[in-house]
Amino acid sequence: MLLVHKYGGTSVGTIERIKNIAQKLARLKKEGNDLVVVVSAMGDTTDELIDLAKKISSRPSPRELDALMSTGEQISGALMAMALEDIGVPAISLTGWQAGIYTDENAGRARIKSVDPTRITEELEKGKVVVVAGFQGICDQNDITTLGRGGSDTTAVALGIALGVEKTEIFTDVKGVYTADPRIVKNARKLDIISYEEMLELASQGARVMHTRAVELGWIYNMKIEVKSSFEDEPGTIIQEVSEMEPVSRVRGIAHKKDIAKITMKHVLDKPGIAHRIFKPLGDAGINVDDIIQNASEAGYTDISFTIPIDDVDKALSILENVKRDLDIREITCNKNVGKVSIVGVGIQSTPGIAARMFGLLGEAGINIDMISTSEIKIGCIINEEDVERAVNVLHDGFGLGEE
Amino acid sequence: MLLVHKYGGTSVGTIERIKNIAQKLARLKKEGNDLVVVVSAMGDTTDELIDLAKKISSRPSPRELDALMSTGEQISGALMAMALEDIGVPAISLTGWQAGIYTDENAGRARIKSVDPTRITEELEKGKVVVVAGFQGICDQNDITTLGRGGSDTTAVALGIALGVEKTEIFTDVKGVYTADPRIVKNARKLDIISYEEMLELASQGARVMHTRAVELGWIYNMKIEVKSSFEDEPGTIIQEVSEMEPVSRVRGIAHKKDIAKITMKHVLDKPGIAHRIFKPLGDAGINVDDIIQNASEAGYTDISFTIPIDDVDKALSILENVKRDLDIREITCNKNVGKVSIVGVGIQSTPGIAARMFGLLGEAGINIDMISTSEIKIGCIINEEDVERAVNVLHDGFGLGEE
Repeated sequence: MLLVHKYGGTSVGTIERIKNIAQKLARLKKEGNDLVVVVSAMGDTTDELIDLAKKISSRPSPRELDALMSTGEQISGALMAMALEDIGVPAISLTGWQAGIYTDENAGRARIKSVDPTRITEELEKGKVVVVAGFQGICDQNDITTLGRGGSDTTAVALGIALGVEKTEIFTDVKGVYTADPRIVKNARKLDIISYEEMLELASQGARVMHTRAVELGWIYNMKIEVKSSFEDEPGTIIQEVSEMEPVSRVRGIAHKKDIAKITMKHVLDKPGIAHRIFKPLGDAGINVDDIIQNASEAGYTDISFTIPIDDVDKALSILENVKRDLDIREITCNKNVGKVSIVGVGIQSTPGIAARMFGLLGEAGINIDMISTSEIKIGCIINEEDVERAVNVLHDGFGLGEE
Repeated sequence: MLLVHKYGGTSVGTIERIKNIAQKLARLKKEGNDLVVVVSAMGDTTDELIDLAKKISSRPSPRELDALMSTGEQISGALMAMALEDIGVPAISLTGWQAGIYTDENAGRARIKSVDPTRITEELEKGKVVVVAGFQGICDQNDITTLGRGGSDTTAVALGIALGVEKTEIFTDVKGVYTADPRIVKNARKLDIISYEEMLELASQGARVMHTRAVELGWIYNMKIEVKSSFEDEPGTIIQEVSEMEPVSRVRGIAHKKDIAKITMKHVLDKPGIAHRIFKPLGDAGINVDDIIQNASEAGYTDISFTIPIDDVDKALSILENVKRDLDIREITCNKNVGKVSIVGVGIQSTPGIAARMFGLLGEAGINIDMISTSEIKIGCIINEEDVERAVNVLHDGFGLGEE
């Protein structure tokens, strides 16, 4: 059987770990499997390379950053291939461009346009384990691009799809997807199966298990993704299409985020196109705007609040300073002391009582809700940052997620 | 004017040095020059990567070593481009394959087959400084190859030729080519001009200023190469065709080597093809055999001695053990305590008296000569390793090289 595995930075973080994974792959190969193995950069390599760039320039160009950062996966890929060869397993490492990963031109956050697995297939036919440098590809200009943080997941899922496997396996430093962050909730439970949409909500709400785009890609092509531990040999969580006939309208997991900030624009003239003029420049700058809430303040005027990653605050505020002048906005405030807690589950938004119960549980615990945002499968509340961990536990218990 | 520069590992060894070079390049750009800049890996990066590989495998495959090592130049190239952009100079870094450096398939010691400078020219036309990762290329299989130690020199000269410049400039940590190693000979003098052939002899005799293949390439295409200091702004040594009409029959420099060993095969049956059967397997193993001397010992038998790099001794002896059995050779001995001193200069071999004077100078100093080898432009003596430094000084003085 052809297997597509992905090993994250922690999993290949040391020479010893690379050798251990090579041993495991050797067994799988011996059992008759073909193997395509996507690797991330070792441990903190990517951060170290970024630090190097920052010492050279306060604003290194994305194109050069990609040329720089892509070396991390090239190194771990070559080392993994060497480790396999060393124990008698024929292997070859391929960079993104050698593996046929074609992307658009958005340096630093490129999207995969197509995959040409010709070279991979050729090497598999020669009996080799093919090790692919994750996180990277090549664009039409022949420049190296990277897919953004966690992009190796996307590489693996895209290769799984192109190679027609049934399931892509993501090996990481957690055992799977949990009902809540196990570091915060003691009795958090590993889920056996989760739907793509639930996983997306969990991921975008802060469960840093999987690269969001990898899940989206899996969803579009209906590729099963198993998230499991690199270090223990047991089943993980399978992300897959979940039949809609099932009675799933219940809370499946609690997600949370801390590193966000809330920006409020007060007294904004309420006319068509105004939101576009505010959020377009933020999007152009690559800032992910999360929950947006708009309230009428006085006649003809409105207040707009939204959350963004805390790291983007300075960039966002400097962009909004121009917007403020152009649109004659009265005031812009920023609160860095916010967090978010969300309940996630297919159908929960349309199931009577679930939202009310969430608000009730938080209220009973004395946790004030600042903003509420909902989607088909999630209800999220912006609260004070210091309340986040308590809120996660209150909701996890309140919705009975610790029980089987 | 289009300039092709190469900066070695020491020259780009720190962030500070990269920034300093960027400043210098910015000035040259401002003065109206176009620039192609070949860079080596920062400082000890290549050694560190090799160490990493050695921790994974005692015999990593050359193909994977190349994939691994080539990242060093990709990193320094990206950083150099960032440093230029940071001070307002448009720049772009290119890997070997992006720069159109096509090589044969000999991983670890590939030779450049052709250069397609299309991308470089396009980027120059956009007004960019083009930074090229040295030491690497791509072979027909689409695999990354490296050109062997010092290969960045070859990259630079090949690009100089492909781009049609008049001179390729090699910036390094020495001021140029000297009459002898300045660390050994106090009054060693920097040469203004040296011929390709003299430079080749000096390089192959141990003057580690330039990659031999870069000089050969320059010679074939008649490309002037200037070797000069990265840290000081003064002329270096120009390697170029020297008119044969000039009265150049004099010693131009003293070269020396210490890290060699002498292997002697005693009582070898003297018949045609025997040398081939000895040296073919050594060559196949990538061992550079230097001076070979053959003496008749008794009727029908001969002794063969030769020198090799000291690092290759174990490999060579294990290969020769098989040869010994096959050819019924009586004994193989190895002396690691040897060194070599050579005088170099066009025409010296055919100039009466020069060889005799060399032997006389060494003899007067009480230095015993073990083997002698000569070429058109060099006379070399194998001596005891501990005599090498004294021999270099004796010859440097004796041939009056310290004087202008």
